[in-house]
Amino acid sequence: MIADFQDWARSRQVRIETSLQTLLPAADVPPERLHDAMRYTVLGGGKRVRPLLAFAAGELNNADEERVTIAAAAVELIHAYSLVHDDLPCMDDDVLRRGKPTCHVEYDQATALLAGDSLQSLAFQLLAEYRLTDSPQMQLEMIRQLAQAAGSRGMAGGQAVDLASVGKTLSLPELEFMHIHKTGALIRAAVMLGAYCGTSLNENQLTSLDHFAKCIGLAFQVVDDVLDAEASTATLGKTAGKDAENNKPTYVSILGSSQARELAEELRRDAYQALEIFGATAGRLRQLTDFIIHREF
Amino acid sequence: MIADFQDWARSRQVRIETSLQTLLPAADVPPERLHDAMRYTVLGGGKRVRPLLAFAAGELNNADEERVTIAAAAVELIHAYSLVHDDLPCMDDDVLRRGKPTCHVEYDQATALLAGDSLQSLAFQLLAEYRLTDSPQMQLEMIRQLAQAAGSRGMAGGQAVDLASVGKTLSLPELEFMHIHKTGALIRAAVMLGAYCGTSLNENQLTSLDHFAKCIGLAFQVVDDVLDAEASTATLGKTAGKDAENNKPTYVSILGSSQARELAEELRRDAYQALEIFGATAGRLRQLTDFIIHREF
Repeated sequence: MIADFQDWARSRQVRIETSLQTLLPAADVPPERLHDAMRYTVLGGGKRVRPLLAFAAGELNNADEERVTIAAAAVELIHAYSLVHDDLPCMDDDVLRRGKPTCHVEYDQATALLAGDSLQSLAFQLLAEYRLTDSPQMQLEMIRQLAQAAGSRGMAGGQAVDLASVGKTLSLPELEFMHIHKTGALIRAAVMLGAYCGTSLNENQLTSLDHFAKCIGLAFQVVDDVLDAEASTATLGKTAGKDAENNKPTYVSILGSSQARELAEELRRDAYQALEIFGATAGRLRQLTDFIIHREF
Repeated sequence: MIADFQDWARSRQVRIETSLQTLLPAADVPPERLHDAMRYTVLGGGKRVRPLLAFAAGELNNADEERVTIAAAAVELIHAYSLVHDDLPCMDDDVLRRGKPTCHVEYDQATALLAGDSLQSLAFQLLAEYRLTDSPQMQLEMIRQLAQAAGSRGMAGGQAVDLASVGKTLSLPELEFMHIHKTGALIRAAVMLGAYCGTSLNENQLTSLDHFAKCIGLAFQVVDDVLDAEASTATLGKTAGKDAENNKPTYVSILGSSQARELAEELRRDAYQALEIFGATAGRLRQLTDFIIHREF
C-alpha cells in the first residue's frame, strides 16, 4: 500500500513537473532573464503537496487528469510566487529554498519581484485559457476561489499577520487564524479545484471534502512549525530554526513540540473523519494525509 | 464639446472611485494594515485613464455600465499593483506618487509588496465573481486577456526589459517593444475588456478597436516620456526627470522632445484612422485620444 502510494505520488510529481515545464514561458522567449527566473523558481523542486492533493481530489470526483493537471499547476504557481516574495529581504530574507539559492540571490531582487508577479498572472491565465470543466460558469468559480485564497483574505493576508506577529505572543486562536490564511487557504483551494474538475460528487460530499481540506491545511502548518524547530537545514532544504531566530510565534513556541505533534494527530483524525462519507474511494486522500502529517521535510 | 467631455470623464472618475471604495476590502477588516495600504494605493488619485478607456469602449459596444465598471476596476487594480511594486527600492525606488508618499514609504516595504500582490489577486477575483457578459466563456476570455497583459509577456515583462535597459542605448524598435509591453498591453486590455462587456460590435469592428488600443497605448508612453523630461514634479505628482537621472532610454533621449511630440501626433492620427469604421459613435474615444496625447500630467 505504501509502495503503491509512493508510485502514485512519484508519477504525479513527474506529471506536474513535465506540465509546468511546458506551461511556463520558455527561457529563450524574451524577456529571457525573467522567464529564466520563473522557471528556476518553479521547476525541479518541492514535494508538490498541493498538486498531489488536487490529483487525489480529482480522482475522487472522477475528473479528467489532463484537466486536473492544469488546476494543479495553477495552484502550484501561486505557491511558488508566494515563496519567491516571502524570501525577499523585506520579508523573511532567506537565502536558501529547496536546497538552492533563493531567486533574489540567484538573480536579483527586482527580477525576483517580477518573477513572482508574473507567476501569479500566469496561474490565472491558465485557469482561464484551458478547459477545466464542461461548465464555464464553474470554471469562473474556480478562478474566484483561487483568487480569494491567494489574496488579502487568504494567503497574502496570512503573510501580513505573520509579519506583524514577530516578537508578539499570540493566543492559540490568533495563531490558528494566521495559519488558516497563510497556508490553509491555498491547500484548501488545491483540494477543491482538483475536485471541481469532475462532476460525480454531490453538494454534501463537496462540503465534507472542504472540511477535510481545512483540517489538513492547518495540520500541514503545525507539522511545518515542528519541522522548522526540530529538523536540520540539510533535511529541510531551507534554513531551519528561522521561526525561533525571528522570534515568531509558532505551534511549537506556544504548545511545545510534543503537544504540537499531538495537535497534528488530532487534525489527522478530524481529516479522516471528514473522509468517512467517501468510504474506500478516498484512500489516496488518507494516504496523503499521513504523508503530510508524518513527513520529515 | 470639451466641457461635455470633461463632465463625462468626471462622472466616470467618480463612478470608478465609488466602486473601488466598495470593491476593496474595508480598512477595518483584518488584516487591517494590509487593507489600509491597499486602499491608500488605489483610492483618491490618478487620472483613471484605463477605466475611462474601458467606459468609452463599453459605450461604443452598448455595454451595461455596471458591468463595465467591474472590468474597469479590475484593470485599474492591476495598474495600481504595478505602481506599488515599481516604486519599491529594488525597482525604481521612488518616494512620491500621485502627490503622496509611495506605499512603502507610508507603510513599509513588506506591506507594500503584499498590498501589490493582493491587488493583483483581487483584480482576477472581481472578473470571476461578477457577471460581466451573458457568456461565461467570454468572461473567461476577458480573464485570460487581462492575465496575459499583466504577466511576463505583457506589463511585468516590459518592466523587466525597462530595468535591464538602464544605461543602455536602445534602438527605436527595441524601445517600442519595451513600451508596448510595459504600458501598451494594459491599456489595450482596458479598451478590449470594456468592449467585451457589450455585444453590438462585429469581429471586424473589434479588430479595429484593438488596433486603436495599440496606437494609444504607445502614444500614452511617448507622452509620458515627454512629460517626465519637461514637466515639474509638482505638476506630475511624481518625481520628474527620473528617466534621465536613472539613465533610462526614452523617446525623448532617442528622438529629442520635438520629434517625440511629433511621433505622438502621428500615433494620434493612426488611432483616429482606426476609429473611422465607427463613424460618429466613437466620439468619446476620439476625445480620450486627445486627452491622452495633450495631457499635461
